[in-house]
Amino acid sequence: MQIVIVLYDRFTALDAVGPYQVFSSMRGATVVFAAEQAGRVSDDERNLHLSAEAALADVPDPDILVVPGGPGQHDQMDDGPLRDWLRAADQGTTWTTSVCTGSLILAGAGLLNGRRATSHWLALGELGRHGAVPVSERAVFDGKYVTAAGVSAGIDMALALAGRVAGDETAQAIQLGIEYDPQPPYDAGSPDRAPAGLVAAMRARSRFILTGS
Amino acid sequence: MQIVIVLYDRFTALDAVGPYQVFSSMRGATVVFAAEQAGRVSDDERNLHLSAEAALADVPDPDILVVPGGPGQHDQMDDGPLRDWLRAADQGTTWTTSVCTGSLILAGAGLLNGRRATSHWLALGELGRHGAVPVSERAVFDGKYVTAAGVSAGIDMALALAGRVAGDETAQAIQLGIEYDPQPPYDAGSPDRAPAGLVAAMRARSRFILTGS
Repeated sequence: MQIVIVLYDRFTALDAVGPYQVFSSMRGATVVFAAEQAGRVSDDERNLHLSAEAALADVPDPDILVVPGGPGQHDQMDDGPLRDWLRAADQGTTWTTSVCTGSLILAGAGLLNGRRATSHWLALGELGRHGAVPVSERAVFDGKYVTAAGVSAGIDMALALAGRVAGDETAQAIQLGIEYDPQPPYDAGSPDRAPAGLVAAMRARSRFILTGS
Repeated sequence: MQIVIVLYDRFTALDAVGPYQVFSSMRGATVVFAAEQAGRVSDDERNLHLSAEAALADVPDPDILVVPGGPGQHDQMDDGPLRDWLRAADQGTTWTTSVCTGSLILAGAGLLNGRRATSHWLALGELGRHGAVPVSERAVFDGKYVTAAGVSAGIDMALALAGRVAGDETAQAIQLGIEYDPQPPYDAGSPDRAPAGLVAAMRARSRFILTGS
């Protein structure tokens, strides 16, 4: 089983590495980072550089594809190599997935039309404008399309998907292996429960947060 | 403020990238990945390659240092360049931290003698044998030494530390930005609550899980 995680300039690191850490523990799964061209790809903070071992053209038939989000998503919303590859690769996938604003890329490619899907909480409106039915949930399954909420939600999504693909016991073993027993020191990870002033300030800066400009 | 995340062959990716994602959102913080030599460093699954932008010798005075865990920890328990650097750099840090079995490296370097510390749940006994006082908690503060439990616990540790360094409001903003509102699909992330058979099977394989051989 081949799992391809797509990289592009200014992706968000944890969007990609959360699912990677979960999926790479599934027996029989090979996880490949791929980008338009093989080589080093830089994240949105410019301080992390991951190696794409494959060009997209080298991995035309993934079983599972994962599209992370990040400010660089904005540059992937037009016709181009990534969109072309996604449309073609999606035809053969068992699961097509995204984390955070990666769902905007899937929606922009026309793959989420009329489907329930999620994204970073600041991007749900934009997701709707691209033809999906936005849902404020941690991980949303609609047929073979699985979308996760913002950044860290990719871990939850990947564990849920690992359960479908490899069974509950395997997914639980992965969870125990990565000791995923989260105990955030604050209860501020959701706009429903974070301090209202913080949510408002972030909404006011949402364009910058989502696109980096 | 400079934050150095140490990389070495066969580190665990999420151990490093979880704290990276949190710390890189702190205003005024520069996060640098560093290894014995600058260049590409491969994780324990051999499918992820992160770029160390600096050699350890280039970053002698970090304000915060982070040591991730992973099976490659086993090769860092003797005298050598990483241990020498850790002992020297630690003299000037404000905070010296680890994730997962990264605490074994700190303990092996003699930095956790008599200190309360934690590690991956499978490595707590080993941590005690290296002079620390093992504690089964998600993130343990003892003076300037902060250790996190297994893999995913680095996110919780980094948020707690961000709160100390930059204040609660900044840490909450980071948590909301990465939408860290965890909803694991199973309650199997702790040996106290995972299925007993799974815990026993993992304990039986602990040497392989911790060292990769």
